[in-house]
Amino acid sequence: MLESTNNPNKKTWLNVTENSDFPIQNIPFGVFLTREDIITIGTRIGDTAIDLGALHQLGYFEGIPLTEDIFLQDTLNDFISDGKKTWRAVRNRISEIFDIENSTLQSNEEHKKVVLFSMDEIEMKLPVQIGDYTDFYSSKEHATNVGTMFRDPENALLPNWLHIPVGYHGRSSTIIPSGTPVRRPLGQQFPKGAEKPIFGPSRLVDFELEMAFITTDANTLGEHVPIEEAEDYIFGMVLFNDWSARDIQKWEYVPLGPFLAKNFASSISPWIVTMDALEPFRVDSPKQEPKPFPYLQQMGKHSFDIHLEVAIQPENNEATTVSKSNFKYMYWTMAQQLAHHTINGCIVNSGDMMGSGTISGPTSDSYGSMLELSWQGTKPVPLNNGETRKFIQDNDTVILTGYCQKNGVHIGFGEVSTKLLPALLQEK
Amino acid sequence: MLESTNNPNKKTWLNVTENSDFPIQNIPFGVFLTREDIITIGTRIGDTAIDLGALHQLGYFEGIPLTEDIFLQDTLNDFISDGKKTWRAVRNRISEIFDIENSTLQSNEEHKKVVLFSMDEIEMKLPVQIGDYTDFYSSKEHATNVGTMFRDPENALLPNWLHIPVGYHGRSSTIIPSGTPVRRPLGQQFPKGAEKPIFGPSRLVDFELEMAFITTDANTLGEHVPIEEAEDYIFGMVLFNDWSARDIQKWEYVPLGPFLAKNFASSISPWIVTMDALEPFRVDSPKQEPKPFPYLQQMGKHSFDIHLEVAIQPENNEATTVSKSNFKYMYWTMAQQLAHHTINGCIVNSGDMMGSGTISGPTSDSYGSMLELSWQGTKPVPLNNGETRKFIQDNDTVILTGYCQKNGVHIGFGEVSTKLLPALLQEK
Repeated sequence: MLESTNNPNKKTWLNVTENSDFPIQNIPFGVFLTREDIITIGTRIGDTAIDLGALHQLGYFEGIPLTEDIFLQDTLNDFISDGKKTWRAVRNRISEIFDIENSTLQSNEEHKKVVLFSMDEIEMKLPVQIGDYTDFYSSKEHATNVGTMFRDPENALLPNWLHIPVGYHGRSSTIIPSGTPVRRPLGQQFPKGAEKPIFGPSRLVDFELEMAFITTDANTLGEHVPIEEAEDYIFGMVLFNDWSARDIQKWEYVPLGPFLAKNFASSISPWIVTMDALEPFRVDSPKQEPKPFPYLQQMGKHSFDIHLEVAIQPENNEATTVSKSNFKYMYWTMAQQLAHHTINGCIVNSGDMMGSGTISGPTSDSYGSMLELSWQGTKPVPLNNGETRKFIQDNDTVILTGYCQKNGVHIGFGEVSTKLLPALLQEK
Repeated sequence: MLESTNNPNKKTWLNVTENSDFPIQNIPFGVFLTREDIITIGTRIGDTAIDLGALHQLGYFEGIPLTEDIFLQDTLNDFISDGKKTWRAVRNRISEIFDIENSTLQSNEEHKKVVLFSMDEIEMKLPVQIGDYTDFYSSKEHATNVGTMFRDPENALLPNWLHIPVGYHGRSSTIIPSGTPVRRPLGQQFPKGAEKPIFGPSRLVDFELEMAFITTDANTLGEHVPIEEAEDYIFGMVLFNDWSARDIQKWEYVPLGPFLAKNFASSISPWIVTMDALEPFRVDSPKQEPKPFPYLQQMGKHSFDIHLEVAIQPENNEATTVSKSNFKYMYWTMAQQLAHHTINGCIVNSGDMMGSGTISGPTSDSYGSMLELSWQGTKPVPLNNGETRKFIQDNDTVILTGYCQKNGVHIGFGEVSTKLLPALLQEK
């Protein structure tokens, strides 16, 4: 069934433009407000949003064990809790319903009226209630660049980096969907040459090009997820912009890690692309030397060939692509991250989110942050309108996009687009 | 009304033993399973648990704006969302109902049968669904001790420490109530003198004596909580044992902070003692020099005189008190922590939890961790049974207790008691 759903030759009776991110081979999951202001779980084919709550009420998921209200919720958490077998059955069924050769819904105007929406009628919401959010630091190129700039070029990678998928806990409350603007944060900084710390708006606001995966319930307290099972607990992936204030970060982060420099906002794309949809795009990840501990060892292809781009759009201007990277550069795989996260017995629940860390490629035009692209502000990045950027300026919009392409199939993530608003006036 | 509720002379018609942690002046909030296996929100006076869901159904909260099911829930989050005015009205009303001079419930045997439980009939649950958990590092003595051991005794405090209430994000999923045992975690370590990292059970499992506060919805994205309003958003406090694996921590924590060394478990006491109950025990906090930035400046008494103790109980043995500390030693106040946490616009929600960080006093018998008490294992701590401890051993139970005492009133937190189980056998 999965092969049929992922079949490159499959066509749908819905309209899908060429190179749409959402052909019938994608079938992502999201949460949206319908034109009647009802919240529902849905999917998307081309520019048509599909109300899965309505489809389910009309009986289209008959035979799949689903509770009556599973799609009439404001988050995907319960559906994700149902597990991989159910996600796959639902995605396969959606693929059948919208197959060009299936006329059941296609010819039912009454049903189509309540099930289908055009994208401009709906409002996308955060797809999951994120219980815990963890951010990894798994791009060797990024860790090396940061180590070179901030520490010692001769010892850029810290000693633990090749042994541990280094990660840390982030803040769930400020994870926001694409389209929600972010304010330039206030905070303490200690500029070079200053005699004491200062307080005010961050002057070094940056994006971080990341992807994130969403998990299902994976274990109970004290148990761990074996590496060979880890992928079964991953529901899907989104684009992730981990907003960062470099000056706040530099002053606050010793010894316990980044805090206010990160937790003012992190933005995600609203459609979760399933691991089933990404299956055809598996690739090898970089060779790991030294060999990791057994609990992190895996055979086969466990990375994914996902092209990533970052664009900066100044207000009332066109966007300029400033970086092209790829998820496949990640040194540690998602399965390794999840196995590591639970090796001590830490509980992973449905709706938890894990970020990859900034995804930098090997060349200077593939770096995943302004910190690296402008090399700490020493190499301003040119924009199409003649301006340059060292970091993100007020009213700039940062747009992350991503897609897979193979055998004529293009599976995309849509975008995560976020405008940076000026800081609120500082009180006192 | 608050003065009447906190009046030291107030007596209740329920039985309360001398020096009980839960006189009628306390009235904490918690969640428990009743003898009928129904989950409810409740309070406690002496050794009697009180079902607030039942009390509400019987009309005892008439006149207070509460939804019908506000106490028939498995977490306090919605009640906490109702805000300070409502918490205070409910606590004051409970105080009236159980006042020795009020015979309404006292003389109603039918009502008493459904409202009152003895403590051994019920099972305490986690009182809130913790959305985000942050841990601070706000004891100057603790930060100095750790800096002295791990870095440089001459520069024990890092440069940011006196300017910032340093904190970091923790893991919500593994916060557990008193009584839930914890497994010794597996993980990577790099012992002194080793040539490469090793993998196995942590050998340096430690407690951290902390307290934590629970917040209500405090702000929206991009806004901050002014310091003078911060206390209004704090619902109450619990005892908090932030379990730590020192060897895992040492190897993993650069540059992004502690991760697996902490997130295998953190234990809390199940009754949340309200800030209203703690009001009579306000004291000054330590003088802050240098003066903090304006967004952190406050006048008046913003700490609390809470006596804290840690005991270690080996299996089938009596417990030994190994530390006596006090919450008043904290350099940064809870209001300062909350104001700092939101100064960048980070959202704080109902049910979020913020830990104080290890609370160490000025003397070596008041340190809040085995790391400090045994000074990295160089001074084994004697137990009453003739054994000693450098860190926590398998099947030891660690018990944190805390109380306030003034004008003949004793308000306590009960305990957080957690047994450390041996590591699971390592696979492969």
